[in-house]
Amino acid sequence: MGLTVGVDIGGTKIAAGVVDDSGTILAVERETTPATDPDAIADAVAATVHRLRADHVIEAVGIGAAGFIDAERATVLFAPNISWVGEPLAEHVKTRVQLPVVVENDANAAAWGEFRFGAGRDVQDLLLITVGTGIGGGIVTGGRLYRGAQGLAAEVGHMRMVAAGVRCGCGQYGCWEQYASGRALVREAHDRLDSELPEALALAAVVGTDRDRVTGPMITEQARAGDPMCIALLVDVGRWLGEGIASLTAVLDPAVVVIGGGVAAAGDLLLEPARHALVRTLPAATHRKNPDLRLAALGNAAGMIGAADLARQP
Amino acid sequence: MGLTVGVDIGGTKIAAGVVDDSGTILAVERETTPATDPDAIADAVAATVHRLRADHVIEAVGIGAAGFIDAERATVLFAPNISWVGEPLAEHVKTRVQLPVVVENDANAAAWGEFRFGAGRDVQDLLLITVGTGIGGGIVTGGRLYRGAQGLAAEVGHMRMVAAGVRCGCGQYGCWEQYASGRALVREAHDRLDSELPEALALAAVVGTDRDRVTGPMITEQARAGDPMCIALLVDVGRWLGEGIASLTAVLDPAVVVIGGGVAAAGDLLLEPARHALVRTLPAATHRKNPDLRLAALGNAAGMIGAADLARQP
Amino acid sequence: MGLTVGVDIGGTKIAAGVVDDSGTILAVERETTPATDPDAIADAVAATVHRLRADHVIEAVGIGAAGFIDAERATVLFAPNISWVGEPLAEHVKTRVQLPVVVENDANAAAWGEFRFGAGRDVQDLLLITVGTGIGGGIVTGGRLYRGAQGLAAEVGHMRMVAAGVRCGCGQYGCWEQYASGRALVREAHDRLDSELPEALALAAVVGTDRDRVTGPMITEQARAGDPMCIALLVDVGRWLGEGIASLTAVLDPAVVVIGGGVAAAGDLLLEPARHALVRTLPAATHRKNPDLRLAALGNAAGMIGAADLARQP
Amino acid sequence: MGLTVGVDIGGTKIAAGVVDDSGTILAVERETTPATDPDAIADAVAATVHRLRADHVIEAVGIGAAGFIDAERATVLFAPNISWVGEPLAEHVKTRVQLPVVVENDANAAAWGEFRFGAGRDVQDLLLITVGTGIGGGIVTGGRLYRGAQGLAAEVGHMRMVAAGVRCGCGQYGCWEQYASGRALVREAHDRLDSELPEALALAAVVGTDRDRVTGPMITEQARAGDPMCIALLVDVGRWLGEGIASLTAVLDPAVVVIGGGVAAAGDLLLEPARHALVRTLPAATHRKNPDLRLAALGNAAGMIGAADLARQP
Repeated sequence: MGLTVGVDIGGTKIAAGVVDDSGTILAVERETTPATDPDAIADAVAATVHRLRADHVIEAVGIGAAGFIDAERATVLFAPNISWVGEPLAEHVKTRVQLPVVVENDANAAAWGEFRFGAGRDVQDLLLITVGTGIGGGIVTGGRLYRGAQGLAAEVGHMRMVAAGVRCGCGQYGCWEQYASGRALVREAHDRLDSELPEALALAAVVGTDRDRVTGPMITEQARAGDPMCIALLVDVGRWLGEGIASLTAVLDPAVVVIGGGVAAAGDLLLEPARHALVRTLPAATHRKNPDLRLAALGNAAGMIGAADLARQP
Repeated sequence: MGLTVGVDIGGTKIAAGVVDDSGTILAVERETTPATDPDAIADAVAATVHRLRADHVIEAVGIGAAGFIDAERATVLFAPNISWVGEPLAEHVKTRVQLPVVVENDANAAAWGEFRFGAGRDVQDLLLITVGTGIGGGIVTGGRLYRGAQGLAAEVGHMRMVAAGVRCGCGQYGCWEQYASGRALVREAHDRLDSELPEALALAAVVGTDRDRVTGPMITEQARAGDPMCIALLVDVGRWLGEGIASLTAVLDPAVVVIGGGVAAAGDLLLEPARHALVRTLPAATHRKNPDLRLAALGNAAGMIGAADLARQP
Repeated sequence: MGLTVGVDIGGTKIAAGVVDDSGTILAVERETTPATDPDAIADAVAATVHRLRADHVIEAVGIGAAGFIDAERATVLFAPNISWVGEPLAEHVKTRVQLPVVVENDANAAAWGEFRFGAGRDVQDLLLITVGTGIGGGIVTGGRLYRGAQGLAAEVGHMRMVAAGVRCGCGQYGCWEQYASGRALVREAHDRLDSELPEALALAAVVGTDRDRVTGPMITEQARAGDPMCIALLVDVGRWLGEGIASLTAVLDPAVVVIGGGVAAAGDLLLEPARHALVRTLPAATHRKNPDLRLAALGNAAGMIGAADLARQP
Repeated sequence: MGLTVGVDIGGTKIAAGVVDDSGTILAVERETTPATDPDAIADAVAATVHRLRADHVIEAVGIGAAGFIDAERATVLFAPNISWVGEPLAEHVKTRVQLPVVVENDANAAAWGEFRFGAGRDVQDLLLITVGTGIGGGIVTGGRLYRGAQGLAAEVGHMRMVAAGVRCGCGQYGCWEQYASGRALVREAHDRLDSELPEALALAAVVGTDRDRVTGPMITEQARAGDPMCIALLVDVGRWLGEGIASLTAVLDPAVVVIGGGVAAAGDLLLEPARHALVRTLPAATHRKNPDLRLAALGNAAGMIGAADLARQP
C-alpha cells in the first residue's frame, strides 16, 4: 500500500499528516477542534484530508482520538474532552472522504507507531506508557495491537496502586495516575510550597505569588537547573512510575516499555529512578530479564504515524 | 488433527490424558512426580504417553507445568516446586516419545482449555484467574494465548494491590495473592482464632488444638454450613479478588473472567462479593460493560485439556 | 464550689447551661452564633450568662469551642467554622461577665464531661472519639485532661491510617477521618449509588433523584430498617473505627474508649464491628486487657457539662 | 532525697548506677542477665545494689526493663526477651535489698531521663522515640510520665502506618516499626543487595558473601562515607519516621520529640529527612508550631538515669 493519512484529534486541535510505509511524515495539515460539535469535527477532519490529497494519493485514513473506541475500530463510545457519545466517527469521515477509515484510541495508535517505527521497532512485545496530566497506555503483543474485548484495553493509569488511596477523577481510589503522572508532580509541588520549608524557596521564587502557575515543565526545568527539591519530586514520581511498570510487567511481560507523554521530557531525571524502582520491585526478578525502559522516539507524532499505519492493517 | 495427549505435571503427580478435538478426555494415566530428578520426570511423562498410545493414535503432546516457560514453548526456565532450571523439557520428552511436544505454563494451558471448551468458549477475550494457595492467571486475547516476550505473562498474583503491603514470597510487598488467595484466607482465619473472639468459636471447635490444621476447604465447608465468621472471611477475600479483577480489567479488557483453582470451590460465597467489588471498583464503569465473572467449567482437567489442544496449534 | 455555666459555641448556635457539681444541668439559654464577628460572639455568650444569673448564683464560666485553644485555656488560635484567629476569648467574655472564664476545645470538654459524669466516670484513663462529619477526640489520663504542649492534643482524626491514602481537607493523605467518619459513610454511599448495583436500590428509593441528599442519619435509619447495604456501610466504617482505636490504644492505653458524635447514634450497628476490629487489630492483645468500647452517655450536652466542670478546676 | 540506684535490665546484661539528684552517675556495676531465671535476675540486681552501697548511701532503687509493666510500677506482666510473666519484680528486689523499689518500662524510664536531665529538660511535654531494631516510646505530659490505664502506653512502634501493610511480629499489619526502624533499614538493604543493581555494589563489597552480616550501624557507616545507596536507605527510613511523628504529634502535641536508640547514631542523615517529612505531613501545620526534633542527649544511660529519678517520685 502507498500513502495513508494519520489524524490526531486532540481536545483543541486536529493534526493530519501524510505518512508513507516507512513511517515518514510527508506533509501535515491542521484545524482547530470544534469540540462540542461532532459533525463539525468530521468536517474538519475531512477538510485536512482534502487539502493533503491535493498533492498526494491517499489510500486510507487512520484516526487517533482520546477515548473509548469500540472493538470494530469505528465508533467513539465515550471521550473525556470531546462531546462524543456513541459517535460513528469512522462512518462520518468515510462518507466525507470516500476512503477506508479506521479509528483507534490515541495511546494505542502511539504504541503502534513506536512499535513500527520508533523506540520498539526491534521487538514484538511492547508496552507504551504515556505520562502526561494522567497516564495512558498501549500494548503490542506478538506484533499485534492488543485491543481487548471492547477495544478498551491498556487503561493502565487506572490500575490500582494504593488500596484506599487518593481519590481519582474516575471515581476510584489509589489509581496509578494519582501518583506517577504530571498531576501528581504538580500536587506534590503544591504541598512542598505550602510547607514553607527552605527547600521550597527556589521553586517558590520561580512560581511567584500565584501557585496555580506550577506546571510539570516548570518543575522539570528547575530540576535540570539543579534544584534539589524538584529533582526529589521527579525521583518520587519516577519511583511510583517504576513500581507500576513492575506490576504491569508481571501481567504483560513486555520486552520493552516505552515512556512517552509530556512528563517524559524530564528524561533520565524521571527514567533513572523509574528503572531502579522497576528492578527492585519486579517480582521474581532473578528468574527473568527486566524489560528495557526507553524514552519514546516519535514524540507528539507517534499517534499520527501509528494511526496512519493502522489504516494499512486489515 | 486427531488425538493428542495433554500432560499436567504437578509437584506431586503427573496426569496425562488422551483428548480429542472437542476437548473430551478419552483416557487418563498417572505417575508420581520424581520432583528432584528432571530425567526421571521426562521418563515418567514418556511412560504415561506410551501407555496411552497402546489404545490410541496420538499425534502430539502438550505439557502444562507450573513455572516460567520460554517463548519457544520448549524450556522450563524456573519452576517453584520442581528442580528444573533451564530444563529443555520439550526436547527431553520428544526424544523419548518421537512426537511433537510443546510445553506451556499450567495456568496458561488452563486458560486455553477454558477458552476452547469451557467457561469462555463463547468469547474471544478471556482472563483466567486460578485462586489456590497463590494466584495464577492466563490471558486469551482475540482468540490467541497471550504469552509475552519471555513467555512469562499473566503472573497476575504478583500485581501489587497495596503499596508497602504484606511481604510476598516473591520478595515484593503487597502482591495481590497476599490478599485474595487461599493463603490469605488461612492467614486471616488464624488471626481470628488467635483473637479468641466468640465469633471464632465455631471454627475453633472444628480445628481443635492444632491450628495449623486450618485449610481453605475447611473454611469453605464451615461457610456453607452457615458459620458467619467463615462467610465473612470469604467475603473479605472475595472483595480483594474483585478489586484486583477491576485493575486487571482496566489493563486487559476481557469479555469474561473465569475463576478457577481450589478456592473457586467456594462458589458464590466467593464470587458474589467479588462481583460486587468488581462493579464498584471498575474505573469508568458507566462507560463500559463489566466483564462477566464465571466459575471455571473444566475443574482440574482444564490444564490437561488446554495443553492437549495447544499441541494442535502451530 | 457551687454552680458554674458551661457554654458550647457551635458554628450556628450557642448553648449555655447552669451546671451543678454533680453534672446536672439546671437551666439552659441559647443564642444564634454571629460566626463572622468575634465581638458579637462574646456579647452573645455574655447575654446567655446574664440571663442564667437572673435565677442562679454563678461562680465561673467554662467555654467549649471547636478549634485550637492555647495551653493557657484562654485564646482561640484557630477555628474551622468561626472567624477567630488568635482571639482572646476568655478575656473578652470575662470583661463582659466579671467572672473567671476558661476556654477549652469542644472535644476536650466533652471528654472531661464523659469522664466526670458520663460513660467513663468509673475510670481514670479515658479516650473520647467523636464521630461526626469528621473525627475529634479528647484524652483523660490519670484523672487529668491531656492538653499537650500547645493545647492541641487529641486531633485523632488526622492520625494517618493509610499511607498515600485519601486526600484530607487538612492537606494530608490517609487521615483516619477520611475512612471512619460520617463523611466517609456518605462518600461510600454515593459510590454504591453510582454503581447502580441492585443492592443500592433500597437506598436509592429513599434518596430520590438528588443524591446530595444522602446523610449519615439516613443511612443509619435504613440500616436499622434492615437494608443490607446500609448495614454493610456501617460495618465498613465501624471496622476502620476499630482499627484506628487499636492504634490509639497502643499509644494511649485508655481503660475506656467512649464513642460520641452524631454517627454514634448508629449504636451497635457501628460499635459491634468496631469492637471486633479493635480486638483483632490490637497489638499484643493477648498480653493486655482490651479497652472497653462504650457509647457516650451525655449526648450533645457533654461539652456543656464538661466545660462547666473545667471552670471549677484550678 | 539523696542518692538512688537506677538499674537497666537488658536481655543480656544488667547495668546499675548510683545517680544523684542532678542526674549525674557516680558509680556503675554490671552483671550478666540470667534471662531464663527470674529469681536469679532478682539476685543479680540485688548484687549490683549491694556492691554500690559499699561506697554510697542509697535511698531507693528504680528499675527499667523492656516489657509491659503494670500500673503499680511493680510487676512485669510480659517481657519480650526475658522469661517474666506476671513477675513481681519490685517485691522480689525489695525483699533482697530492703529499699523502696519501683519498676518502669525501659523506654518510659529513658523518656523520663531525657525529660529531667537530657534533651527535653527545657520543656514539660516530650515524646521519646527509641529507634532500634524496633521502635519504642515514652511520653511526658505536663511534667508527668504518661503511663496509661494498664501502664502500657507509648507502644508507638505498633501504631499502624500502612493499612494491610507488612506483617509485624506483634501479629498485626503495617505497624510503624516495620518501616521506620533498624529492622526496616536492614530489610531494605537486603532487597537492594538482592536486586544486584550497580548502586548496591559498594555495600555488597563491605558485606561480603554472607548477607546476614548487614547491620544498621554498617549502613550508617557507609552512608557517612558517602555511599549514595546507604544515604538513600536512611532517607527512606527517616521519611517514614517523620511521617509517624506527624501522626503522633496530632494525637499527643509534644513540645519536643527526642530520637534515641541505636539508629539515632545516624544523626542528621536520619533526622534531616525525618524533619522534612514531619513538616510536610503534620496536619494543620500552618496553625501550630512544629515540635522540635532532637537527638537524645543521654545515650544508653537515659534508662538508668531516668529509672533512678523515678525512684524519687512518690
